Amino acid sequence: MSLSIAYLGPPGTNSETAAMAYVEHLKQITGQECILCPDPTIAASLQTVALGEAMLGVVPVENSLEGSVSVTLDSLWQLDDLQIQKALVLPISHALISWASSLSAIHTVYSHPQALAQCQGWLEKSLPSSQLIPTNSTTEAVMRCSEDYETAAIASARAAELYLAPILAHPINDRPENCTRFWVVGKQPSPGGSHTSLAFSVPANVPGALVKPLQTFANRGINMSRIESRPTKRSLGEYLFFIDLEADARDPRTREALAELETYTKTMKIFGSYSIVCN
Amino acid sequence: MSLSIAYLGPPGTNSETAAMAYVEHLKQITGQECILCPDPTIAASLQTVALGEAMLGVVPVENSLEGSVSVTLDSLWQLDDLQIQKALVLPISHALISWASSLSAIHTVYSHPQALAQCQGWLEKSLPSSQLIPTNSTTEAVMRCSEDYETAAIASARAAELYLAPILAHPINDRPENCTRFWVVGKQPSPGGSHTSLAFSVPANVPGALVKPLQTFANRGINMSRIESRPTKRSLGEYLFFIDLEADARDPRTREALAELETYTKTMKIFGSYSIVCN
Repeated sequence: MSLSIAYLGPPGTNSETAAMAYVEHLKQITGQECILCPDPTIAASLQTVALGEAMLGVVPVENSLEGSVSVTLDSLWQLDDLQIQKALVLPISHALISWASSLSAIHTVYSHPQALAQCQGWLEKSLPSSQLIPTNSTTEAVMRCSEDYETAAIASARAAELYLAPILAHPINDRPENCTRFWVVGKQPSPGGSHTSLAFSVPANVPGALVKPLQTFANRGINMSRIESRPTKRSLGEYLFFIDLEADARDPRTREALAELETYTKTMKIFGSYSIVCN
Repeated sequence: MSLSIAYLGPPGTNSETAAMAYVEHLKQITGQECILCPDPTIAASLQTVALGEAMLGVVPVENSLEGSVSVTLDSLWQLDDLQIQKALVLPISHALISWASSLSAIHTVYSHPQALAQCQGWLEKSLPSSQLIPTNSTTEAVMRCSEDYETAAIASARAAELYLAPILAHPINDRPENCTRFWVVGKQPSPGGSHTSLAFSVPANVPGALVKPLQTFANRGINMSRIESRPTKRSLGEYLFFIDLEADARDPRTREALAELETYTKTMKIFGSYSIVCN
């Protein structure tokens, strides 16, 4: 039976590229066949998995230029029983896609806000007077620019190929080392691995309330590779902290740290331990 | 002479409401007259101030539902000599604006991504099959919905009034206690006040590298009201930390903590001390 994998569609998005990379990885290891299921939003991809309508979901977590993808963190906190099965790091390269005959004919550029932000410098230099219009996905941008020859889209070279659209410039991202990290999420038990992700809240307005949680890891020589705060959505100034550790939660030292951590937190959720695949 | 204040325009945005609240505040205290200057983006508002083309800028920092406004943090780090003069906390209330005769006639809703996110629940319940299209500002959404009577915008009641547009439902934000914090930024020396904001980076891949910086404040009983990480934009896994303290940088205890902090950081920038005005 094929394994269903949810992702932010339609085909041609960077999430699809990540999902395909994971499918290839699975095929090499287990020979498992997969079927990709596009969703209209990242939240919908995770919901689909939580409801059991797809076995796995591949969602972006963080870009090296634009930072966290908030909806992924917020959804993971809100939904139950989701565990991270794997992390994927993918280089992201953007192309300017347009049916215009030259750059000077373009007055509007469509793309996902993250992609627009990642090409900001190039746009200011090469298309200084064009209007930038955000879209829900890079693929939607390609579809919209096909309706008007004086507009362009920022999307992957693969999207251009899929929709038979011409590439006017590539790559146009401001930094060549542009990378995005994705998580493969499912309801299966945590597979274990080199990294562990979790989130927690601490009592409000206590000086140093965040120091003790971080010390539990520092005292044991466990490196925290990332900390991100998100609002609890109750009141301004109340946060959830999302943390990535370079440690396996099955390791006794990490288990001990997590048990101690729990005593300092108000609420806590462990999203599991997993390994990272770099493409 | 009038004092020029930059904000994310056009008129009708929540940034304009915040700028007007600050103008009112200034008038009461100093009698100073102000002129409001709309900019097309938040980054442009801050750049205008850094270049000396406007005396002050009013920019959103954080919403109680959607979290940090990344572009504000990133711009403040990149631009030189900007100091926070004041913080404003404003309740944010969203209206559904449309020329449609009823909800059932609406197939598309335009708004700024933050506003769409803040009304997510209401939209799923009341307009489940409508398409959500992001715009650069809530005001731009009102302008776009005026072109097609089967579409709607999410914006403030003030925007509806300014553009003579009908309100179909109000308020529609999922939580009534929806607030946004704004910063008033200028090149004037820091005025001092109850809160201090700063940002720093720490050496990469050192276990506990963030613990020491946080301890400098905890050891002195200084409460940290917020911590936010942003990518350095160099490589995945390298961060800047933005911190708000409940302390005045002119206070000897805080000065001592900041001096110690500097020894643990790679780079550090203090955005000044300021007081908070709640509306």
